[in-house]
Amino acid sequence: MGARFNASTFHRFEVLLMSVLVVGSIAIDTVKTPVEEHSELLGGSASYAALAASFFSPVRLVGIVGDDFPNSEFDFWKSRKIDTQGVQRVTGKTFRWSGEYSWDLNTRQTRSIDLNVFEEFKPELPETYRETDFVLLANIAPSLQTHVLDRMERPRFVIADTMDLWIQTTRPDLDALLRRVDLLILNDSEAREMTRQTSLIKAGRCIQKMGPAHVAIKKGEHGALLFGEGDRFFSCGAYPLEDIHDPTGAGDTFAGGMAGYLAGTVKKVQFNDLRRAMIYGSVLASFCVEAFSLERLRTLSIEEITTRYETFKLMSQFELPPE
Amino acid sequence: MGARFNASTFHRFEVLLMSVLVVGSIAIDTVKTPVEEHSELLGGSASYAALAASFFSPVRLVGIVGDDFPNSEFDFWKSRKIDTQGVQRVTGKTFRWSGEYSWDLNTRQTRSIDLNVFEEFKPELPETYRETDFVLLANIAPSLQTHVLDRMERPRFVIADTMDLWIQTTRPDLDALLRRVDLLILNDSEAREMTRQTSLIKAGRCIQKMGPAHVAIKKGEHGALLFGEGDRFFSCGAYPLEDIHDPTGAGDTFAGGMAGYLAGTVKKVQFNDLRRAMIYGSVLASFCVEAFSLERLRTLSIEEITTRYETFKLMSQFELPPE
Repeated sequence: MGARFNASTFHRFEVLLMSVLVVGSIAIDTVKTPVEEHSELLGGSASYAALAASFFSPVRLVGIVGDDFPNSEFDFWKSRKIDTQGVQRVTGKTFRWSGEYSWDLNTRQTRSIDLNVFEEFKPELPETYRETDFVLLANIAPSLQTHVLDRMERPRFVIADTMDLWIQTTRPDLDALLRRVDLLILNDSEAREMTRQTSLIKAGRCIQKMGPAHVAIKKGEHGALLFGEGDRFFSCGAYPLEDIHDPTGAGDTFAGGMAGYLAGTVKKVQFNDLRRAMIYGSVLASFCVEAFSLERLRTLSIEEITTRYETFKLMSQFELPPE
Repeated sequence: MGARFNASTFHRFEVLLMSVLVVGSIAIDTVKTPVEEHSELLGGSASYAALAASFFSPVRLVGIVGDDFPNSEFDFWKSRKIDTQGVQRVTGKTFRWSGEYSWDLNTRQTRSIDLNVFEEFKPELPETYRETDFVLLANIAPSLQTHVLDRMERPRFVIADTMDLWIQTTRPDLDALLRRVDLLILNDSEAREMTRQTSLIKAGRCIQKMGPAHVAIKKGEHGALLFGEGDRFFSCGAYPLEDIHDPTGAGDTFAGGMAGYLAGTVKKVQFNDLRRAMIYGSVLASFCVEAFSLERLRTLSIEEITTRYETFKLMSQFELPPE
């Protein structure tokens, strides 16, 4: 996989390739499914998001790792033009997470979390990062997401991912962040929890009133919903997969795919760009879950991405001519 | 609402308007939601399905009612060109059902069922019905669905709807029926129960092997999936509704809308026709739940249907030009 995504083939005549800054967690995971268990896996929201974004645009990564973190991952990032100047390497152990999935892979329990060096994480932005046009605040504490935003020059488009933990424990921080975000990504149960609305349509509209002009609600196997300004609405299914091996990182990959696609192809983000971004995010996520950790994304090619995008198109169309 | 659906406006140059035979239950319902309760409502799978189908094609209705059943409903059916020669009126009370919905309208409990005249129901087909090209076996016992099929001349396309009760209690009857059906419609939990597969993709493919070349899996607020021959697959979202008043009959309306659209516009059913049929079924179902019983469908216009179809198109497309 050497070829980079060529936006001009699809929707634009110029290839923009603006960079996207990705901040989030970098972890070493242990994952157990009903079928298998693997340890010492690369994980963390930023790891998934950065690799997913890198298929479409240059990435500037911000995170922290300990001195136990393998050099080979830095080599891999370098090979993918993922800038790691913003990744702090400090004395101590890397953030470690261990989780176990239920029989149907739909729910998971955290078995252990060792924050380690992540506990003291204060994102540092290299001077060269400060002018990045697209920012993806992958899933970490809202106060850290805000800290990064504060250090940015004047980003064109800010995407934030979040999770139930922050909705429950740091709601004021999250509310403050939302007013500075262009697109919030969260899953269906989180959207319901955040708004106390059972209808996802009401929940999406309600979150828009909290700040973000755009809201993407992920529904797992049921696809995703996108809400935009002036009643704009988009709904897509999930790519039909028969076998899922490890759902870890699917949401981070979705967010990374969206952010990378926008940075790589769009100058001024409009709702119709976000539609396509959501499909590319879904495509990337569908590959992610086919293997443990980032293994499938590591070998993924642009051709495979575009083929699955075309399948997505076919499975969503209903005004096709007779066969 | 006098105008009939004009297929030529959309997808064909000739208007076929073949008839669809609809058999199922006709009931008088009492429905309680967290907000309101209504009784003496027209209900039953055939009532919903027939009215939904009638927007697109002439309908031949098969069912049974008691002598307490209001004449006004026969007048209404007549006004909609729904042929009621196949509706038996017998001495006794009409089938009565009473149900109550949970706070989020996602689950319901049956409070009472009085089969009454339905207990002795043996569908009788008027001679004029026997050559009908399209057949919708709306939700009733599979043995009754088979009984109707046995009396048909040579239908072009047979659709069957079913429910968890028949999967649990009359599985051999259902299995026998499936081998004679072109399209089976069921909901997600029923598909999982029937196949013991957690993946809906696997469940759909598995049901195809039991007989039907096509399978439609309804997912409520998450839309629907369609499986066809040779890996053909279609996925659509649900129409985004903020307020739902009564979910009763949504599934029957979906099936009726599909059947009516196909009978009214398609000569030889292909997968691409079924895609559109599923959207029309979804559109009809989205109107159905906006009011109790069939009240919204009674006042619905063709113009409202086509407007919502266009909204569906817009919310599903992701290759639109810049705004």
